[in-house]
Amino acid sequence: MVKAVVMEGPGKLSVKEFPYPKVERGSALIKVEMAGICGTDKHMFKGETVHPRGLLTKFPIIPGHEVVGRIAEVSDEASKSMELLGRELKVGDRVVLDCAITCGKCYSCRKYPGFPFCDKYSGHYGWGLTCKDPPHLFGGWSEYLYALPDTRLLKVPPEVPPEVAVLTEPMTVPIMSFTMASNAVSTSYLYPPPEYVVIQGSGPIGMLHLIFSKLIGTGEVIMIGRPEYRLKIAEAFGASYVINIDEIKKPEERVREVLHLTGGRGADLVIEATGNASALPEGLEMLGRLGTYVITGIYIDVGEVSINPQRLILSKWAHIVGVPGQTHQSYPKALELLRKYEGKVGFSRLITHRFKLEEAVKAMEVALSEECMKVVFTP
Amino acid sequence: MVKAVVMEGPGKLSVKEFPYPKVERGSALIKVEMAGICGTDKHMFKGETVHPRGLLTKFPIIPGHEVVGRIAEVSDEASKSMELLGRELKVGDRVVLDCAITCGKCYSCRKYPGFPFCDKYSGHYGWGLTCKDPPHLFGGWSEYLYALPDTRLLKVPPEVPPEVAVLTEPMTVPIMSFTMASNAVSTSYLYPPPEYVVIQGSGPIGMLHLIFSKLIGTGEVIMIGRPEYRLKIAEAFGASYVINIDEIKKPEERVREVLHLTGGRGADLVIEATGNASALPEGLEMLGRLGTYVITGIYIDVGEVSINPQRLILSKWAHIVGVPGQTHQSYPKALELLRKYEGKVGFSRLITHRFKLEEAVKAMEVALSEECMKVVFTP
Amino acid sequence: MVKAVVMEGPGKLSVKEFPYPKVERGSALIKVEMAGICGTDKHMFKGETVHPRGLLTKFPIIPGHEVVGRIAEVSDEASKSMELLGRELKVGDRVVLDCAITCGKCYSCRKYPGFPFCDKYSGHYGWGLTCKDPPHLFGGWSEYLYALPDTRLLKVPPEVPPEVAVLTEPMTVPIMSFTMASNAVSTSYLYPPPEYVVIQGSGPIGMLHLIFSKLIGTGEVIMIGRPEYRLKIAEAFGASYVINIDEIKKPEERVREVLHLTGGRGADLVIEATGNASALPEGLEMLGRLGTYVITGIYIDVGEVSINPQRLILSKWAHIVGVPGQTHQSYPKALELLRKYEGKVGFSRLITHRFKLEEAVKAMEVALSEECMKVVFTP
Amino acid sequence: MVKAVVMEGPGKLSVKEFPYPKVERGSALIKVEMAGICGTDKHMFKGETVHPRGLLTKFPIIPGHEVVGRIAEVSDEASKSMELLGRELKVGDRVVLDCAITCGKCYSCRKYPGFPFCDKYSGHYGWGLTCKDPPHLFGGWSEYLYALPDTRLLKVPPEVPPEVAVLTEPMTVPIMSFTMASNAVSTSYLYPPPEYVVIQGSGPIGMLHLIFSKLIGTGEVIMIGRPEYRLKIAEAFGASYVINIDEIKKPEERVREVLHLTGGRGADLVIEATGNASALPEGLEMLGRLGTYVITGIYIDVGEVSINPQRLILSKWAHIVGVPGQTHQSYPKALELLRKYEGKVGFSRLITHRFKLEEAVKAMEVALSEECMKVVFTP
Ligand SMILES: [Zn+2]
Ligand SMILES: [Zn+2]
Ligand SMILES: [Zn+2]
Ligand SMILES: [Zn+2]
Ligand SMILES: [Zn+2]
Ligand SMILES: [Zn+2]
Ligand SMILES: [Zn+2]
Ligand SMILES: [Zn+2]
Repeated sequence: MVKAVVMEGPGKLSVKEFPYPKVERGSALIKVEMAGICGTDKHMFKGETVHPRGLLTKFPIIPGHEVVGRIAEVSDEASKSMELLGRELKVGDRVVLDCAITCGKCYSCRKYPGFPFCDKYSGHYGWGLTCKDPPHLFGGWSEYLYALPDTRLLKVPPEVPPEVAVLTEPMTVPIMSFTMASNAVSTSYLYPPPEYVVIQGSGPIGMLHLIFSKLIGTGEVIMIGRPEYRLKIAEAFGASYVINIDEIKKPEERVREVLHLTGGRGADLVIEATGNASALPEGLEMLGRLGTYVITGIYIDVGEVSINPQRLILSKWAHIVGVPGQTHQSYPKALELLRKYEGKVGFSRLITHRFKLEEAVKAMEVALSEECMKVVFTP
Repeated sequence: MVKAVVMEGPGKLSVKEFPYPKVERGSALIKVEMAGICGTDKHMFKGETVHPRGLLTKFPIIPGHEVVGRIAEVSDEASKSMELLGRELKVGDRVVLDCAITCGKCYSCRKYPGFPFCDKYSGHYGWGLTCKDPPHLFGGWSEYLYALPDTRLLKVPPEVPPEVAVLTEPMTVPIMSFTMASNAVSTSYLYPPPEYVVIQGSGPIGMLHLIFSKLIGTGEVIMIGRPEYRLKIAEAFGASYVINIDEIKKPEERVREVLHLTGGRGADLVIEATGNASALPEGLEMLGRLGTYVITGIYIDVGEVSINPQRLILSKWAHIVGVPGQTHQSYPKALELLRKYEGKVGFSRLITHRFKLEEAVKAMEVALSEECMKVVFTP
Repeated sequence: MVKAVVMEGPGKLSVKEFPYPKVERGSALIKVEMAGICGTDKHMFKGETVHPRGLLTKFPIIPGHEVVGRIAEVSDEASKSMELLGRELKVGDRVVLDCAITCGKCYSCRKYPGFPFCDKYSGHYGWGLTCKDPPHLFGGWSEYLYALPDTRLLKVPPEVPPEVAVLTEPMTVPIMSFTMASNAVSTSYLYPPPEYVVIQGSGPIGMLHLIFSKLIGTGEVIMIGRPEYRLKIAEAFGASYVINIDEIKKPEERVREVLHLTGGRGADLVIEATGNASALPEGLEMLGRLGTYVITGIYIDVGEVSINPQRLILSKWAHIVGVPGQTHQSYPKALELLRKYEGKVGFSRLITHRFKLEEAVKAMEVALSEECMKVVFTP
Repeated sequence: MVKAVVMEGPGKLSVKEFPYPKVERGSALIKVEMAGICGTDKHMFKGETVHPRGLLTKFPIIPGHEVVGRIAEVSDEASKSMELLGRELKVGDRVVLDCAITCGKCYSCRKYPGFPFCDKYSGHYGWGLTCKDPPHLFGGWSEYLYALPDTRLLKVPPEVPPEVAVLTEPMTVPIMSFTMASNAVSTSYLYPPPEYVVIQGSGPIGMLHLIFSKLIGTGEVIMIGRPEYRLKIAEAFGASYVINIDEIKKPEERVREVLHLTGGRGADLVIEATGNASALPEGLEMLGRLGTYVITGIYIDVGEVSINPQRLILSKWAHIVGVPGQTHQSYPKALELLRKYEGKVGFSRLITHRFKLEEAVKAMEVALSEECMKVVFTP
């Protein structure tokens, strides 16, 4: 039998057992080494369950889309075609998961190659495939994950340990953010580097954007978040300034502070990594002329927000970009960055808490408390 | 004495006389041949007076920022430096006006060359310079316009008549829209041409975006507007489909219609040319994956609007771009397009009504009625 | 038996018969309706046989990579996966061929999605697959073409006749040229449209670049080529000026002419569509400041040429871009342009000569004479 | 009297005295603190005297276009308009020189804002203005430099010493290189960061490209140059590999080495910083698919070189970009990078030799020996 954490609906977490699966043609089985808890998982736990493009959480689910593990079994077909860069897969290989399943051959896969738009979309691991139906194991909070045909796995170099590799999926997010933003007039005008970057949100995604900003030589990075625990980490990773929203409670005061820190001009680039709709008007207020605003945290539908399009967009000559996921190609870049800069950056320090599957309720509590950075399961 | 239309405040239009000015060092005087009424003028007349970057209408004003005329007098300095492309200016030369005055030498002029951001900003003709103070003549609805130092005038080739040249300033708007949009990932992905373009708004700015779209070979253009009078013109200029908002009154039905017309995929590019904040959520609903939304009509502050950032921006992997004005460089491009394609396109057909200065109240009535396209004064 | 034209080596063309093939798993068979003669075919006939990336012509071959035909047979797998946009393929469907076979799953296919870089490269139809081995039928100058697994076919809408659809592959070339060029600083600076475009070469590829330039609203197009026959066609398709190299024989005089026509400034964009290395220095001389030079015709290795990098590249702040092929995604765009603008442009007028397979020698003679535009076989 | 180094022609250096000038309207006088010797100066000394756009060295000259100094005198007009970012200039202010004089108001200045294309071009300091005519002092190897109207000076923050500020002009070069390259498809495809960068040339310009590459997080940087003295510095500044051309003498062996170091794929970005035409074919051989090649060192005309356009450009789907100078806007970015990263990078270590004006012959000898990095005068 295979042990896994099941979320049966909002607020309901338990450990279940599933039969050990038979690996079918085109498929593979991964022995999970480590799987992260993401903001998306917290949203679903809280009952916010509408993903991009209106896709719904398919309860009951085994959560977990940030996954590293070792190949336990692999079919002939999968061994030749499932590795993201075309390499052979063998039992024992350490891999990370590309969490979106796309066919690569339909209208949308052809028109937007590498993007997770697929007309034959069959699901996302961790939330878009129910565990009701066999082979059940479609999430990373489990001893094993079953990789269906058309899934992509990326081989991990031997020198990269699980606590670094597990960050591959979240690390693709800043890569997408900066790639999308770099196409906007403002950043190319300022290229390189943006002088002032504001990051709204001090969780793991915000932190990876901070690290990425520093790696590509942007100027000052201002991080806005909470609690103290996380802002201390932000400073350790190179934030020039932190703004604690528990202390500076009024958005207009935070805006004033950012304007002050940027010499009255506002930021060249503002990254939303909060999951909170009210971040949008606040962040647009902080944006300077020809600035770029990237929405990456409002991944789950959390409702509407009111903005002034003239004052906050047109008048600033602003660009707004939404980033709901990642291309295939961003995975190898993310893993390579993690590998290359682990010595210099120490990404593994972001993994602050580790739990066994049986401790799922406690793990979620810690994640919700925000007195943590990345919380992971080590099944 | 010089006759001019004065807007003393919202709703107050009258004809006044001003002393014929003495042309000072660095300045020039233009005998106005034709000057347009723009949506901005209508907004100000209705009491909506906040321009981009919070700039206020400096009542009393002589409106008119779309201006063509002939050099009546020119100082030595201006004759050598005021022409936008460095050519000499002589009495009798036909010119169009770049309506923003920028110094070209400050931090903002250097950082964003050509853009109308200037730390020593001294005003916009037509609304940003009051006519209270001498030499008074800072708008086009007048027999003469006084061009201050640092103003740029663009020479008009002899074969371009006033009724074509007067469209130069509005023609810069689609050039800016498409230039900004072309930097967004979506259009470059689709380049060239975007398959489906939606234009919200059937006034002159919408119409020029339609014409421009056709000139650069985009696919089907869907224009949404009113009244019938204007939509007929849209069809004459090549719109594939028109949607009359007097007939299809519910936004959700218009969205459904656009999705239907685009094979369920939504538009690649949506241009807002309405001046109406509610156009934003409606237009974003019409946008397809990796689509680009350009805000160009909400030039005057008309308040807030509520949007769902996850569903309408992030989920679509969308780009939103705001365009509040034009660069210097866009003027020669606009004039060149008008010159080159007048034979093929017939831009001058957009000038549907001409009035004398004394008929200002009536001219504004016609403009407000929307039973017109471009309304102009011929002082 | 299946009749096909075979090129056994340079200068050797004959008609052979091959056994009618059995369609294997993953494959399909196309009954060819029309197949074009391309400059590449002429090069191979003349003994110039080195393709991009050093790939060699695999003599004996059945030439023909510009192919339209109807599905004669299709395996179950191919009917579900071989259509470029994911649509089902049925017997009788009209399709055009994407001439490069790529796996879509290797390092290179992932890194450059849609581009014909493939680490498991198995060949190009028309020159990269020998007809020695069964099922032999790997070129379009044949009654049937055998489509191997991983081939992509694109369905042709019913209103597009073969004489238009056969231009799909060559039409992808200007799409690639302009897409690549649009990323260069110069064209984005001038966007849109480039004021002056020079096209070197008046064959079908040059002609399609001319047509494409006009469709996207560029300014004056100057075409340089020979003979009179072709330059007349160029004028019919909208060239502003033509320069006949039989008349103006010295490159420096042609350069002088282009500088004259462009007001001394040189062209914003120069497209090489000649297959002749000496076009490079000549075309760079014609290029203006921040101009872009696109190499698309020197597809076959024709040796070296001497250039002055300071004067011709650095000094002009120039961009040079090489385009050796097309992405998958460019095919649907090409076909859509052909479909949409056939009524306006009359692409089918480019098909000037049609031959039966038995007339292969004569067809090649006509193609080599250049007293033709596109020459095709109608098997 | 004012002492200055004069180059009367190739090979002829001497120290001369000039009258202390009267500062005219619109002008300023700078007391030079430090001025660098650039590769261009070495070229001119060796008799290679054709600059970009065919401009000739105007012998006799006072060389020196990399200049930092303090305002000694400033006219009223210049104090208000000569600072690059619009700040006031006062006696005693430390400034660096933008070495190109452009009017900002002609066709070319408007069309390419910020670029040193000017139809009223009046010269470059250090080589494009002769010292024959008063006020003579148009180069940095002098006690004073006379700044003409339309010159731009950039204020240096107090914490930046002359040995850092003097690198501003050369530091603009990598900024331009990467800005131009970032518009090419290849780097945006790989963005961010390029995996492999090759820099040809180990002088100051090569070294600043190396430092810049590291600051923006590119992958491995391979530097090719000589002698050992310089390659040791390259390693100290973070080159992953160095290739000594005194040791690996054959270009084809160096190409093989680069292919080996890049896993057979070639570099994503190759920067030419040698001033040697033969670098072009060698560097193109080292370039990978969709790679970008930036020509920045072949600033002076050094003749022609033979290349194979099919194999080296088209076949690789390559971009080639030439960079002959810098925009205004690149100066503040360069100075800001120097200021910000001096603590981390230690740019001042690049200043390896300092000389008095009287030691000009010896200074040039050291510069030519290449047993140095940046050689400067401290008048
Ligand atoms: Zn996640
Ligand atoms: Zn798909
Ligand atoms: Zn207006
Ligand atoms: Zn200014
Ligand atoms: Zn071909
Ligand atoms: Zn492949
Ligand atoms: Zn230099
Ligand atoms: Zn100029």
